[in-house]
Amino acid sequence: MSSTYGEHLHLSIFGQSHGPAVGMTLDGIPAGLPVDMEALQAFLDRRAPGRNAWSTPRREEDRPEFLSGILESHTCGAPITAVIYNQNTRSADYRAIQDCPRPGHADFPAQVKYGGFQDTAGGGHFSGRLTAPLCIAGGLCKQWLERLGIAIYAHIAVLAGVGGGSFDPVTPEVDKIGKDFPVLDPQAGEAMRRAIEKARSQGDSVGGIIECAVLGLPVGLGEPMFGGMESRIASAVYAVPAVKGVDFGAGFAAAYLKGSENNDPYTLADGQIRPVTNRAGGILGGLTTGMPLIFQAAVKPTPSISKPQQSVSFSEKTVKTLEIKGRHDPCIVPRAVPVIEAAAAVAILDIILQEGKLWN
Amino acid sequence: MSSTYGEHLHLSIFGQSHGPAVGMTLDGIPAGLPVDMEALQAFLDRRAPGRNAWSTPRREEDRPEFLSGILESHTCGAPITAVIYNQNTRSADYRAIQDCPRPGHADFPAQVKYGGFQDTAGGGHFSGRLTAPLCIAGGLCKQWLERLGIAIYAHIAVLAGVGGGSFDPVTPEVDKIGKDFPVLDPQAGEAMRRAIEKARSQGDSVGGIIECAVLGLPVGLGEPMFGGMESRIASAVYAVPAVKGVDFGAGFAAAYLKGSENNDPYTLADGQIRPVTNRAGGILGGLTTGMPLIFQAAVKPTPSISKPQQSVSFSEKTVKTLEIKGRHDPCIVPRAVPVIEAAAAVAILDIILQEGKLWN
Amino acid sequence: MSSTYGEHLHLSIFGQSHGPAVGMTLDGIPAGLPVDMEALQAFLDRRAPGRNAWSTPRREEDRPEFLSGILESHTCGAPITAVIYNQNTRSADYRAIQDCPRPGHADFPAQVKYGGFQDTAGGGHFSGRLTAPLCIAGGLCKQWLERLGIAIYAHIAVLAGVGGGSFDPVTPEVDKIGKDFPVLDPQAGEAMRRAIEKARSQGDSVGGIIECAVLGLPVGLGEPMFGGMESRIASAVYAVPAVKGVDFGAGFAAAYLKGSENNDPYTLADGQIRPVTNRAGGILGGLTTGMPLIFQAAVKPTPSISKPQQSVSFSEKTVKTLEIKGRHDPCIVPRAVPVIEAAAAVAILDIILQEGKLWN
Amino acid sequence: MSSTYGEHLHLSIFGQSHGPAVGMTLDGIPAGLPVDMEALQAFLDRRAPGRNAWSTPRREEDRPEFLSGILESHTCGAPITAVIYNQNTRSADYRAIQDCPRPGHADFPAQVKYGGFQDTAGGGHFSGRLTAPLCIAGGLCKQWLERLGIAIYAHIAVLAGVGGGSFDPVTPEVDKIGKDFPVLDPQAGEAMRRAIEKARSQGDSVGGIIECAVLGLPVGLGEPMFGGMESRIASAVYAVPAVKGVDFGAGFAAAYLKGSENNDPYTLADGQIRPVTNRAGGILGGLTTGMPLIFQAAVKPTPSISKPQQSVSFSEKTVKTLEIKGRHDPCIVPRAVPVIEAAAAVAILDIILQEGKLWN
Repeated sequence: MSSTYGEHLHLSIFGQSHGPAVGMTLDGIPAGLPVDMEALQAFLDRRAPGRNAWSTPRREEDRPEFLSGILESHTCGAPITAVIYNQNTRSADYRAIQDCPRPGHADFPAQVKYGGFQDTAGGGHFSGRLTAPLCIAGGLCKQWLERLGIAIYAHIAVLAGVGGGSFDPVTPEVDKIGKDFPVLDPQAGEAMRRAIEKARSQGDSVGGIIECAVLGLPVGLGEPMFGGMESRIASAVYAVPAVKGVDFGAGFAAAYLKGSENNDPYTLADGQIRPVTNRAGGILGGLTTGMPLIFQAAVKPTPSISKPQQSVSFSEKTVKTLEIKGRHDPCIVPRAVPVIEAAAAVAILDIILQEGKLWN
Repeated sequence: MSSTYGEHLHLSIFGQSHGPAVGMTLDGIPAGLPVDMEALQAFLDRRAPGRNAWSTPRREEDRPEFLSGILESHTCGAPITAVIYNQNTRSADYRAIQDCPRPGHADFPAQVKYGGFQDTAGGGHFSGRLTAPLCIAGGLCKQWLERLGIAIYAHIAVLAGVGGGSFDPVTPEVDKIGKDFPVLDPQAGEAMRRAIEKARSQGDSVGGIIECAVLGLPVGLGEPMFGGMESRIASAVYAVPAVKGVDFGAGFAAAYLKGSENNDPYTLADGQIRPVTNRAGGILGGLTTGMPLIFQAAVKPTPSISKPQQSVSFSEKTVKTLEIKGRHDPCIVPRAVPVIEAAAAVAILDIILQEGKLWN
Repeated sequence: MSSTYGEHLHLSIFGQSHGPAVGMTLDGIPAGLPVDMEALQAFLDRRAPGRNAWSTPRREEDRPEFLSGILESHTCGAPITAVIYNQNTRSADYRAIQDCPRPGHADFPAQVKYGGFQDTAGGGHFSGRLTAPLCIAGGLCKQWLERLGIAIYAHIAVLAGVGGGSFDPVTPEVDKIGKDFPVLDPQAGEAMRRAIEKARSQGDSVGGIIECAVLGLPVGLGEPMFGGMESRIASAVYAVPAVKGVDFGAGFAAAYLKGSENNDPYTLADGQIRPVTNRAGGILGGLTTGMPLIFQAAVKPTPSISKPQQSVSFSEKTVKTLEIKGRHDPCIVPRAVPVIEAAAAVAILDIILQEGKLWN
Repeated sequence: MSSTYGEHLHLSIFGQSHGPAVGMTLDGIPAGLPVDMEALQAFLDRRAPGRNAWSTPRREEDRPEFLSGILESHTCGAPITAVIYNQNTRSADYRAIQDCPRPGHADFPAQVKYGGFQDTAGGGHFSGRLTAPLCIAGGLCKQWLERLGIAIYAHIAVLAGVGGGSFDPVTPEVDKIGKDFPVLDPQAGEAMRRAIEKARSQGDSVGGIIECAVLGLPVGLGEPMFGGMESRIASAVYAVPAVKGVDFGAGFAAAYLKGSENNDPYTLADGQIRPVTNRAGGILGGLTTGMPLIFQAAVKPTPSISKPQQSVSFSEKTVKTLEIKGRHDPCIVPRAVPVIEAAAAVAILDIILQEGKLWN
């Protein structure tokens, strides 16, 4: 398997950047769940390009067309398939083989793996454009999770080295996330936008860290070992191109703490047991603790930059200087925020359906 | 699924800490592969407790007994099952329910999830003891990977805040890893051991970061999106208890770099294309680049500490002070090093078998 | 999972009879395989309605549109998605709930399962129309199998009680299969067509048995137990609506034979070991023997008949007489012949890819 | 995958006929389910050899030892592993390679597949002995299904050509199944036993057909297409060695009926909709109808016979006459009856857990 995910639900993502369409099939969803198309579109718009000063001016309409699975605004039990037709499809020169692999992209290993048969236009199936169908799936899953009282919020914790603050792990300040620019601290957000603008003007790019909190999870969700929440969420989040790190709770910082500092003691609240602190990020032994599930995802700087880069020619077997033309996002971190939420939503709905206990 | 892993091979891990045995079944392995039992035992000994001054003095013999799948030191094509019988099995009081959940352990969510039916003795199925069968599987996979020219090495990059150095990402100095204590810099190793001793004397514990390099991988291994190397390795590594973070190549640090700094330019070496640097950790677009695949795993400090901790009584619904008796590892990081290698070996052999191209 | 199949390749089928489209995604196919669209269309035409006197006069064009995965007539390594847009889509009255479940159809259990949210128009996702995307997938797999020297042929062994002959199990007479009407014995074919015509004139329907042979398989394909060829082929063939029985080789007749009659003795041919006879249908212990793999599928009479039938009203909770209007196939067996081939092709390519040994 | 089964639960079967042990791991079972070991042993005894005049006199004790997953007679949520140690293990000559493949056994394709590395003793992993761990899993699943009001009964419908009667498909006469010999008609049972005795005296063997009914299923269990009840049950039942045919309800006989004869009309009973007849075998569109789910499995005659048979020598590449020594079951059909029930139980519990609606 490759572009598929799930133990209970079954997500299959297809399409190439400049092919006729990108899309997804989501199978295994119960019948009778309502679908709010406006809310879904609003979610997709958070990812869509060309909406803001800090993103590429190229504007696409990411309007999904549903081919199956939804009837009168409700799931009908059949697999849900939606496609977004590409407006920017392959032109006559589409097989002008990309002779120079772009550093930081999948071009080189894909050329070796697929022997030159891969679709190279715009990165083909490896393009960030494939996060659009992931957001269709994730946006739907988010809606259905909300009906169970489960909400997912992400924000930019770091961008271009500028820290935007982190959630309080016990009571994440989700209301503080900026609507226009998803950061907790508006001033840091300003600095981040300036850093993006500066990178653009230099023909360069910047990366960042996205923090995501899942609120409202019951205690005891997850399975032991390979079925733990960390394994399942990480394997979904790492499907997002450019993600190079995922950690949970204190994460890498836990390596610097003592056990007495990192352990979360227990207390009673309204007769219920709960951890006092949440260094564990809401997960112990792979199982949810009922505290906010918090993870961070590191997003590398966009590999497409205008600066000249050293590459090679496949055909000539010579070293060459590559200059990537066109307009590119100098930073995909803001647009990646809903994508991270989407990946988390798919992973969490999958395990909830697998546990089969909540949907009543 | 829960304690199972794999797309092509199929690993199933079973057992509880104080039950009759822990073990594993590894299915989907080709017939005719040789098995070096001495090498396997040596690998298992790296994980076993009681071998060193810096580990708990309790000594167990982790000697696997193979029930199936191996004949005359070769795989026979049938599922491979091995068990390690527990010498330290449940005594008469085994159902003395663990009334106080230990902070940092799975006790609390497991109690909720399994309604009190779970095996609480020694952490049951959530115990670190389950990494022994993971090492049986991983130790076998490592042997078979070596026949393909693929080698896996891990070392302690950080322990208790002491940095032990990192691999050169292009030519990892795997020969420098200490045999007695798996660290690149012997002096840092001394400091780490002192930190462990200090934590022990304080009834506390420390964590760390393990860095792992996989050498000899071909170009183009992996699948797009959810089947990418990061997703598959992370989901295996996160099955190791206490791992709270996994990143690849520059990982979280990439968030602070510019694209021009993070991209690996290409060059030609002996007519072959290869990246000059390796900030990508040997993975682009989920596919291997032929460079060393490098990842880091953050290991939290051992949750079992002797210091008094605040917990609650399930039965009395009161806050209590918990004091954990017995001898515990003040740091599991050194013993976790081969476990991380094992998880990586299983993940990598799985995808190699799935690609079905190399085994000839 | 539900409408998905495969251990190595991954087939996902979607769509409802009167929804916008039916289609399929086929993931896990190697890059660089040629696609012959004309041959695929010819294969699909064998299933399409309205082509023959003995089928319904309603004529649909089943022309797949490929949204991804194919570039310049070759697979590009990305998931392959194709859709057939329904010309006969839901009209204004599409939610006129089917109040009377049609005997022999999924209507009643689907109503209970999906709580009335299912798409009832034309049987929705349970419609025989979903065999069109199965034939897209199977038609592609057949092409690629042919490149490996593997060919699949099916014919009508029984229709309406009329026997059309069976393959010689050692050297199936595949050349004798009628092009117009897939039967070995043309005279039996005439009798079958008369039986279909008679059933139509009576407002009734008839069923039959399809025999399928897979030629050119290597020895030793398949896995033990649940991964045996019988398990895998049967689970694919039973996905075809109306199939109620599947057996292999002598199959049910083997129950009446003695061991000495049913065992296939071995001989040598050109220095190669091979069975003399083929009562085993080319499978022993779940593994292929190198003989033709032969199975039969029982197809029940089309449940849609014009004769009045007893049913009930969901809304009124009364017994009612149901008369199904419209033109229906009095026999789907001829059109099911390529569908059975398609299901077999998908199952066999899946296991060949999983074994990973042949594609060179 | 090979010796593994399940979408929600996860069954892994291991062992070879003359290896140290055969066994199974069953993962994904909820915690807190009671286990009746006596009932399990009684179920296993139905399969065990040497109990009756009509079976081989070799007597083995099939007593499972549980290594994990069960605590104080209840499931504890961890994977359940049980083994049966083989008393009849490999002797010094175990690698005396079986130079002559036994007709009707997996010997020949296994030799090709595994290149001679397979365990040949007693058929290795392809031995009927592997049905013992299948019965451990199935016996447990049967117990848990009974708590949901679901019962599974099988009997011998045909043996050596002697018909033993079939279930009434609406109200199967499960009370009439003989305790000593599982047949509905005691006189037919006598004739069957005589036929077995005759086959034994002739050094030959006989086969038969087993009919199985699953009672108490809710309406609407199952998934569309590949997830239909037929696909899932057939893929489990075909894992039983010697099964060569599986059909549901009228099955192959449906091919001879008209639609008006085969369709089951609906009626109302106590305000509930239900089919009047049950030619569908309790399944429409892959979904349960609430009627008894009825299927038949064809079991070929035991391939091990004493009569001389033509085979070949692997080493000498010559045709040879093979005479199989030792005592063999002249008919495994009676012992296969609980095995078929076990396979059905595993398949049905799997889908029930997947649907996640019933266990409360």
